[in-house]
Amino acid sequence: MFISFEGIDGSGKSTQAKRLAETLRNRGIAVSLTREPGGSEGAEQIRKLLVEGKGERWSPETELLLFTAARRDHVERLITPALERNETVISDRFADSSRVYQGLVRAENRQLVEELHRLMIVVEPDLTFIIDTDPSVARNRGVIRGGTEDRFESLGLGFQLRLREGFLALAAEFPLRIRIIDGSGSEDEVAARVLSHLP
Amino acid sequence: MFISFEGIDGSGKSTQAKRLAETLRNRGIAVSLTREPGGSEGAEQIRKLLVEGKGERWSPETELLLFTAARRDHVERLITPALERNETVISDRFADSSRVYQGLVRAENRQLVEELHRLMIVVEPDLTFIIDTDPSVARNRGVIRGGTEDRFESLGLGFQLRLREGFLALAAEFPLRIRIIDGSGSEDEVAARVLSHLP
Repeated sequence: MFISFEGIDGSGKSTQAKRLAETLRNRGIAVSLTREPGGSEGAEQIRKLLVEGKGERWSPETELLLFTAARRDHVERLITPALERNETVISDRFADSSRVYQGLVRAENRQLVEELHRLMIVVEPDLTFIIDTDPSVARNRGVIRGGTEDRFESLGLGFQLRLREGFLALAAEFPLRIRIIDGSGSEDEVAARVLSHLP
Repeated sequence: MFISFEGIDGSGKSTQAKRLAETLRNRGIAVSLTREPGGSEGAEQIRKLLVEGKGERWSPETELLLFTAARRDHVERLITPALERNETVISDRFADSSRVYQGLVRAENRQLVEELHRLMIVVEPDLTFIIDTDPSVARNRGVIRGGTEDRFESLGLGFQLRLREGFLALAAEFPLRIRIIDGSGSEDEVAARVLSHLP
């Protein structure tokens, strides 16, 4: 089974991806916990180009190609082999992040994301959790984190609000695959909400 | 005018691109001389991922996405702005290198190259010179060069022979745009052959 976690920066999705991996491992299930952009050796090298530097370093289209290159490497070298070993793969972000982000920066790029996905990626998660968190709460978490990977996190509250709306709209587009999880309350409370959707 | 030079490693195309740039500048024409992969600041950073490391570092498909990302950046940041300033752009390699190389490593990838080009690049040179050189002659030049960018140059003579055939086949596909230039003889002789095709 391939599960992805999505949401805005600071939504708690990374924490929840880890929590779910631990819970499943405690049940004796083999889990590969991974993330995007990155996850495989080559994709992590592409990640550096994507998350460091200034906002205008890449155009939205070049950025989309770099994300797709990183995703292709991640799928080939980590996700597909793990699924073939019958492991459960849990990824902190996958293609939905590109769909929402690119769709916001330029509406017609949403179609480019789909065409590139169909040509070069194909793979889709079996189940996607969107951790839905108030952007002003999420921002406080993000600010504390700091570090050099600030190319996307510096986009501002207004953009995070639109990203949140984008994720909620995506959930309506893929109702069979995507579950919206209320991200408010304690980590334990959110983790329990995620688990309630698993068999 | 946008002019590209193509050919196998060591064919003399880089030298001839430089020679043509000098000749046109001596005639008072503004020229941007550039190369692929690379040419713009971001594309040169992607180039490092492409040309360094082991042959199996990237799959053909991931490699194609990285080449396309680098080309998109190159077109946006260097080629299109230079053409808009009415400069002549001369590029050492462009999309034909991807067509030939990817078509050889996996026949069905030739179609992927075209679809990605149509989606993300669109731009095509007005004129392309293929410097056609015997691979065993070209290899001796390449070996002398050395350096760390050996990911493609270590492909071997058999592969270079097939690349040469691929470039010749491409010329037959695009007879209006592509000119085959005999790469034998002195630099001056080859430069004169190139010039004979210009108005």
